[in-house]
Amino acid sequence: MVDESESVRSPSLGVWLIGARGSIASSLAYGIFGLRQGLIDPIGIATEVAPFNALGLRAFDDIVFGGHEISNGTLSSSAVELVRHGILPRDLVAACSGDAAALDARIRPGLLDVADSGDAHVNSETLALGGLSQRAKVERLRDDIIHFREEHGLERVVVVYLASTEPWTDERESWADLARLDAAIDANDETPASCLYAYAALRAGAPFVNFTPNRGASIPALRQLAEEVRLPHCGNDGKTGETLLKSSLAPMFAARALRVLSWQGYNMLGNKDGASLADPVRLRSKQRSKDAPLRAILGDETHTSVGIDYVPSLHDWKTAMDFVHFQGFLGAKMTLQFTWTGSDSALAAPLVIDLVRLADFAAARGEFGVMPQTACFFKSPLECDVHDFHAQFQSLVAYALERAPK
Amino acid sequence: MVDESESVRSPSLGVWLIGARGSIASSLAYGIFGLRQGLIDPIGIATEVAPFNALGLRAFDDIVFGGHEISNGTLSSSAVELVRHGILPRDLVAACSGDAAALDARIRPGLLDVADSGDAHVNSETLALGGLSQRAKVERLRDDIIHFREEHGLERVVVVYLASTEPWTDERESWADLARLDAAIDANDETPASCLYAYAALRAGAPFVNFTPNRGASIPALRQLAEEVRLPHCGNDGKTGETLLKSSLAPMFAARALRVLSWQGYNMLGNKDGASLADPVRLRSKQRSKDAPLRAILGDETHTSVGIDYVPSLHDWKTAMDFVHFQGFLGAKMTLQFTWTGSDSALAAPLVIDLVRLADFAAARGEFGVMPQTACFFKSPLECDVHDFHAQFQSLVAYALERAPK
Amino acid sequence: MVDESESVRSPSLGVWLIGARGSIASSLAYGIFGLRQGLIDPIGIATEVAPFNALGLRAFDDIVFGGHEISNGTLSSSAVELVRHGILPRDLVAACSGDAAALDARIRPGLLDVADSGDAHVNSETLALGGLSQRAKVERLRDDIIHFREEHGLERVVVVYLASTEPWTDERESWADLARLDAAIDANDETPASCLYAYAALRAGAPFVNFTPNRGASIPALRQLAEEVRLPHCGNDGKTGETLLKSSLAPMFAARALRVLSWQGYNMLGNKDGASLADPVRLRSKQRSKDAPLRAILGDETHTSVGIDYVPSLHDWKTAMDFVHFQGFLGAKMTLQFTWTGSDSALAAPLVIDLVRLADFAAARGEFGVMPQTACFFKSPLECDVHDFHAQFQSLVAYALERAPK
Amino acid sequence: MVDESESVRSPSLGVWLIGARGSIASSLAYGIFGLRQGLIDPIGIATEVAPFNALGLRAFDDIVFGGHEISNGTLSSSAVELVRHGILPRDLVAACSGDAAALDARIRPGLLDVADSGDAHVNSETLALGGLSQRAKVERLRDDIIHFREEHGLERVVVVYLASTEPWTDERESWADLARLDAAIDANDETPASCLYAYAALRAGAPFVNFTPNRGASIPALRQLAEEVRLPHCGNDGKTGETLLKSSLAPMFAARALRVLSWQGYNMLGNKDGASLADPVRLRSKQRSKDAPLRAILGDETHTSVGIDYVPSLHDWKTAMDFVHFQGFLGAKMTLQFTWTGSDSALAAPLVIDLVRLADFAAARGEFGVMPQTACFFKSPLECDVHDFHAQFQSLVAYALERAPK
Repeated sequence: MVDESESVRSPSLGVWLIGARGSIASSLAYGIFGLRQGLIDPIGIATEVAPFNALGLRAFDDIVFGGHEISNGTLSSSAVELVRHGILPRDLVAACSGDAAALDARIRPGLLDVADSGDAHVNSETLALGGLSQRAKVERLRDDIIHFREEHGLERVVVVYLASTEPWTDERESWADLARLDAAIDANDETPASCLYAYAALRAGAPFVNFTPNRGASIPALRQLAEEVRLPHCGNDGKTGETLLKSSLAPMFAARALRVLSWQGYNMLGNKDGASLADPVRLRSKQRSKDAPLRAILGDETHTSVGIDYVPSLHDWKTAMDFVHFQGFLGAKMTLQFTWTGSDSALAAPLVIDLVRLADFAAARGEFGVMPQTACFFKSPLECDVHDFHAQFQSLVAYALERAPK
Repeated sequence: MVDESESVRSPSLGVWLIGARGSIASSLAYGIFGLRQGLIDPIGIATEVAPFNALGLRAFDDIVFGGHEISNGTLSSSAVELVRHGILPRDLVAACSGDAAALDARIRPGLLDVADSGDAHVNSETLALGGLSQRAKVERLRDDIIHFREEHGLERVVVVYLASTEPWTDERESWADLARLDAAIDANDETPASCLYAYAALRAGAPFVNFTPNRGASIPALRQLAEEVRLPHCGNDGKTGETLLKSSLAPMFAARALRVLSWQGYNMLGNKDGASLADPVRLRSKQRSKDAPLRAILGDETHTSVGIDYVPSLHDWKTAMDFVHFQGFLGAKMTLQFTWTGSDSALAAPLVIDLVRLADFAAARGEFGVMPQTACFFKSPLECDVHDFHAQFQSLVAYALERAPK
Repeated sequence: MVDESESVRSPSLGVWLIGARGSIASSLAYGIFGLRQGLIDPIGIATEVAPFNALGLRAFDDIVFGGHEISNGTLSSSAVELVRHGILPRDLVAACSGDAAALDARIRPGLLDVADSGDAHVNSETLALGGLSQRAKVERLRDDIIHFREEHGLERVVVVYLASTEPWTDERESWADLARLDAAIDANDETPASCLYAYAALRAGAPFVNFTPNRGASIPALRQLAEEVRLPHCGNDGKTGETLLKSSLAPMFAARALRVLSWQGYNMLGNKDGASLADPVRLRSKQRSKDAPLRAILGDETHTSVGIDYVPSLHDWKTAMDFVHFQGFLGAKMTLQFTWTGSDSALAAPLVIDLVRLADFAAARGEFGVMPQTACFFKSPLECDVHDFHAQFQSLVAYALERAPK
Repeated sequence: MVDESESVRSPSLGVWLIGARGSIASSLAYGIFGLRQGLIDPIGIATEVAPFNALGLRAFDDIVFGGHEISNGTLSSSAVELVRHGILPRDLVAACSGDAAALDARIRPGLLDVADSGDAHVNSETLALGGLSQRAKVERLRDDIIHFREEHGLERVVVVYLASTEPWTDERESWADLARLDAAIDANDETPASCLYAYAALRAGAPFVNFTPNRGASIPALRQLAEEVRLPHCGNDGKTGETLLKSSLAPMFAARALRVLSWQGYNMLGNKDGASLADPVRLRSKQRSKDAPLRAILGDETHTSVGIDYVPSLHDWKTAMDFVHFQGFLGAKMTLQFTWTGSDSALAAPLVIDLVRLADFAAARGEFGVMPQTACFFKSPLECDVHDFHAQFQSLVAYALERAPK
């Protein structure tokens, strides 16, 4: 007995997920499967509502997923975890098992970052891939994407980077332009996996969305490549929780001319991301992303601090506690304190589908390079100094209104 | 020995405070005195920063205060309370005693609202005023304002209504147009004190700012009067705390297409406003103001509730605890909880000075009627459906940029 | 195929649940079934740990459930709701379906309180019961309990009252002693259902546990009856959440000689209990229970307030936000604010099993009347002025140590 | 003109404060001066209420203060800071200026810890003291205490250690007994200042209270000395805020057999203590004190974490935000979150007066060695495994009841 649920449709957009069996990817895939079957409402997907729903963005039925993954396991084993922690409804997982199995079969071995090598659950094909030269690796990744597009007769593939936070790496000279990057790859120089993936995606003709704080396509050489191949890309680091709140609240203090003395943020994470951030070098990548927005909105006089702690019992349910100390008229000192508790995956997944649709839309219109309209989705939006969430969102609205059919 | 601190200046703008010895008025007056002497920084005053500081708004040195008040006491006795509770710095109060005494001498007996009559501390002149006809009352109030303007050679007087919350009153037929209102006043019909004050202000040629949830100038008859006498006015109910936060945060949920299931707000007030809101009929006025913004932004499907409790030990330090229950992708339920603690007076006073400056500026340019640009200052902005704080503030910025000197 | 899971055991203790298909009863029953099968850990059951585990209390395997219920439906339909809201694990429900069906078959029609009559889901047998005289009703209830004991050959039955909060009723003259109560029942006077149940239980020879704020066995006439029939009983109102926290924290303030100025408690409930508390008369019953402990510990100078709001989206997940304003040395004012979120049923159910075991133990030892050792389980412990949770718990520990085998 | 306020009394108890111009010492001294004059209520002083007020403890009038201090400045300059931040009422400071000046004149140069040497505000006499041998230093400190006792004809002096947190030092062999410690001092070995102070106090015949996490008298050699000279002593680290709450709340979770999965504590400090804890080696001293109580009550399975951050804008107003993740019946996961804001000095000062009175009382009765009855005052009580605040407090109550006059 064959599951025909996808074969009878003619999907025209491929979504290639790097980290395809991770929590976000699993939540996203099952969520889209569930939406297709009418099992859930499209809550949290901004592109489903006005004014974005007038743009003719890709329908859920027109999407097919594939991806890279370094870990062993199946999508349904990821789903079991998400059911256990109350993210994925069990009925939905059961109803979408055919779709999930079909996606599982399309997942290809991913690339280990140099810092990942101790992980016990890495699949053997990924380990084999590690023996190749850098050039051979990017060609393999690129070919996987191209093969996916051709096999499914897809009009376009958008690549979304959803893997773990890499250790922070300072900018290198070999990243300054494309020629030097190509030389470094040929010389087999160590290069962050996120950059190799971005390189491969763009070389495969695919728009690239970097949902992590990793370098991805944000180094000058890859921005140059995106311009040359005339493809859109965006990033970095999805704005899903505490930073979203900060960038929504801080503008109010600025508008009221209140003086924010201190803003302390404490983040508790229990998932794989939290575990990897227990490594201080990886943590640095994340903290840079999380601290910058406040400074941009409130200025450098505000004492800011962002803590990230691994609290295993929380699993996917991240909790942030922030304390804001501010001064008003007459020098009176006042406080705001908030606690935010949400599922990391359920907050992130709908942003991915929004970004995929917007990247597909931009590519279809011939727009390329950094996508400034997506700033509201990211903690560290590329080439953007505006961190005020509301201002960012108004830019997206304006972008949509300009392009909506009259 | 005479305090010369004001006599040597030539103030050109009068600010007439109704409730002139209340906490907000006292904080405002001492604050402006302190700013003139360079004792404090202008924190919390939006019109001190860009782009509003380019409009040539009235300087602190160019302002003289007067007002109506129903209670006995002096400004300095109000200040003692505010010092005790850590709002006014004692040094500032000491340094500004001359200015305060001069203001005290300019305060005239105010009008009791019918619901205030049990108050023990009402001054005898206010009680005497109560014996007059409604028409005689408004003439007395009007004459006080005119006399203030003439005595000090002021270019303009702005009247700001800062008195206690009145009991909620349903709209009346006699308020539908100016002719009927005049007839009702002549017939000595009971009319809310806030309406009589607004009537008197407009008849005295003064722009009117209603900082309370009371009716003030928002009834059709008085809006008509403002149009006829070509004066600007604005209100209602200063947005200083929990509602400010709600209207800053709720748009984020809307922008992210998250479904807010419940928004419970618990307000604890310890000041005179809190005590008067222990009366359920007055409370209704306030709750209407505080509940509407959320419904406007999030829709009627959200379960909302606004509680206001009198907690005497807090005095001027109001505390709000809000609980937001929302649903994201996959139906996952998440929460945001915040606690906001601030001085009611220190939050409100700088908004009053902003509104006075903007009303003065509008009047100087010949603008009249409702001032839509001031929506961001109010819980229930007149003739305005937008409650999103950021959108409101952008309107104010746009208003300023259009009128700034090139 | 027959489920043999219970038939092979020889249970010797019956637990008769009034409100047998409610959330607490369902959580309790499935929980005990799961514990028997080793599917879950006995978390939250104090009698499982030292020193109580040395008393030889009844084992989970030795318990059989029955009960009264007024609503239609089955235990498994209650379980579906609890699974949906993340209280009961679905696997546990599936694994215990045989036990649940067996229990369902033992549930008998309950008695409507006069205030319940509008409920749409009441079963027809309960409605029929409503037509009987008060005397006939209590005899029917009594007979159900006796029949349960005899049919299953039980050594003893403990009756636990878990139904909804009744409207507050002032003490009546007819409750002053047993003779008058009997006369009132014979005269067919309206009597709270909770009293009729308690009467029936004691007349059936069963110890009675009142887990609600309802009158239950706390009226003088029924306390007299318990003494006469030499049966133990306890109540009122299980201390599961906010009151538990209050009575744990307030003693610290007292021990440190800190002056608590205000203690504001805001409770949000989304379950049937919350809905019934939307009725202000029922609410009064609950608020009395929740307010008294603080006053007992901190004295009457503390301003206290307890709010209860119905927030449907929370379902069984009650959330309490408390604000404590206190004064320390030098008069410095300080604050404590807490937010507690827990499953009402999962917090309550293990206390019920503890109380059942303790009532059974007391009865076996010939102890009768009010059980003072159970004060730590109740918001309004009968005949007990101590509300300090730690002191209450130490009494229970002392009770156990005195009775433990040497 | 001479201030006679103290000379007319005949104080019989000396309190020698190490860190005599710090925030706690200043708050304490002004507070006691104010209590003598009837300017404030004795809030926060447990020994003022039953059952401790029946022990005949030393009256406020019978106490005279002196102390050691390393910083320049005066008590009144410390008071100015505390007034600015709303801890000390200005009127109290003004009214007690004579007492404060008299105390200032009795303060002697203190000893720098090796890690303090970079501090800019150290007084020159303290620097000179640094040039002496270890032996000469302890003799100087001892002589200061003896001179204070003799000059004022005091019956007894209690020494209280209130200086900054020292860097953590591992146990040394030379601390194992008194002979080795004496040898180390003679050999001029580096020894923590807190140990030298404790040594000097005991050699001066004074009971010693260590209110800090520093070693103080807790090393074996000094415990031996206290036994030999038959003096009582107690410590370490005053339990004033977050740890007080933890040790009040954790026992409730244990009593209810709930499983605490994670307890994250985030402390924000703005005072000198906070600044010194920005040094990770000093932080370690403090974190050890703060983490142990939870582990003792809840066991090692609970994931615990204690963060301490320096947030300068808070000054003396420390704020703690704790997040407790726990599991109940059926495995349901629940949360408690609290925020505690209090003045560090106003919380600590009354505990110091309690401890001084109790040490004086013990010494008067000939009790010596560690004072186990004081466990409830400390984060790391000496020779005590009980961290449950309520159990600790009951021990103190029992101690008092045993010794109260019948």
